[in-house]
Amino acid sequence: MTRGSFLVLEGGESVGKSTQVARLAARLRALGREVVETFEPGATALGARLRAVLLDGSDPVDPVAEALLLAADRAQHVSEVVRPALERGADVVSDRYLPSSLAYQGRARGLGVEEIERVNRWATGGLEPDLVVVLDVPEEVSRARQTGEPDRLERAGTEFHATVRAAYHELAEARGWVVVDATADPDAVGDAVWEAVSRCLSPTARGGPGPSGPDDARGVHR
Amino acid sequence: MTRGSFLVLEGGESVGKSTQVARLAARLRALGREVVETFEPGATALGARLRAVLLDGSDPVDPVAEALLLAADRAQHVSEVVRPALERGADVVSDRYLPSSLAYQGRARGLGVEEIERVNRWATGGLEPDLVVVLDVPEEVSRARQTGEPDRLERAGTEFHATVRAAYHELAEARGWVVVDATADPDAVGDAVWEAVSRCLSPTARGGPGPSGPDDARGVHR
Repeated sequence: MTRGSFLVLEGGESVGKSTQVARLAARLRALGREVVETFEPGATALGARLRAVLLDGSDPVDPVAEALLLAADRAQHVSEVVRPALERGADVVSDRYLPSSLAYQGRARGLGVEEIERVNRWATGGLEPDLVVVLDVPEEVSRARQTGEPDRLERAGTEFHATVRAAYHELAEARGWVVVDATADPDAVGDAVWEAVSRCLSPTARGGPGPSGPDDARGVHR
Repeated sequence: MTRGSFLVLEGGESVGKSTQVARLAARLRALGREVVETFEPGATALGARLRAVLLDGSDPVDPVAEALLLAADRAQHVSEVVRPALERGADVVSDRYLPSSLAYQGRARGLGVEEIERVNRWATGGLEPDLVVVLDVPEEVSRARQTGEPDRLERAGTEFHATVRAAYHELAEARGWVVVDATADPDAVGDAVWEAVSRCLSPTARGGPGPSGPDDARGVHR
């Protein structure tokens, strides 16, 4: 069986990742493909508990410990969700994956992109996405989009987020990630994401991404 | 200021590590040394939450995720407890440290001693104990000592624990860890541990391990 496509949406806080994950999954399903929507951190039972520890901000968290917890979440996510889905031929659309750790822990927290990549390659057994799309909006826009109580990362401040954004741009350039301007309306952003995705889709067991298959094989993991 | 000594007691389940940590700490304090008693996993606020996730067995835990969680606990432990204590001149006596991960995750879970060591060197900034003492008892003895509900590791079975014990022996041989027969009564085991410790103690700010200093500088972290 052909492996599904592993598609990752990335970017800073409140850039519209979850909206675009849902839109992308819907477009893939309309082609008759099975799609698993997922996210990091916290998509597994173990991960949900780790996410709570990481984001509630009640305990001090050493930056290296934080990076290792995120890698642990990712190891569980890959072994329990991502790899089994890809292997049965489903596409996986994930809100964040390893690129987040490279930008946030490697660059913005200053732990080193190479070190973070090494520990995460071990965590994931080397599983690479087929496509990484970085949703990019200026700091003012993402801040205006935030609603509710900010979590620990959202509180981390303007300078940190500017560093994260610069890191995404730099890493995208070096690694062939696609950067999409996400200040436009969601339909236009969705079209730009789709343009990048349609160039890299794997053929499916049903004979490719033609709009012929029924939409009954969906698997939502969220 | 002279750095304190970092002393680690190791071994399988129910071999008497916590008893011997307390005895060793008392002997060091009787020499006028400041001692921090600690343990892994779970000695920090973050670590206590990770320990609960690891040991309650309610969620599936991938072996690599488990190893990364233990490394995260260790990173927090070193940065919050162990390194600050050593740097102010206190001795640190820990119930488990990196050798546990080499024996359990590296060998018994089959993840590879080299990989586990590499990720843990990064987690700890390369902090090495001054002495590792492995408390060794045959499987029958440790099982007879267990009380209460067994946790996830205790339930893992006879073969797993035999592998752990063999791993400790092999690693001790290669790395100069001291193996102490812990089937004897706690006083005799304590004497054997003390014999190994007294050969490697760092001098203290008070002028060495002579039995002269007052016992007022204690710090108990447990």
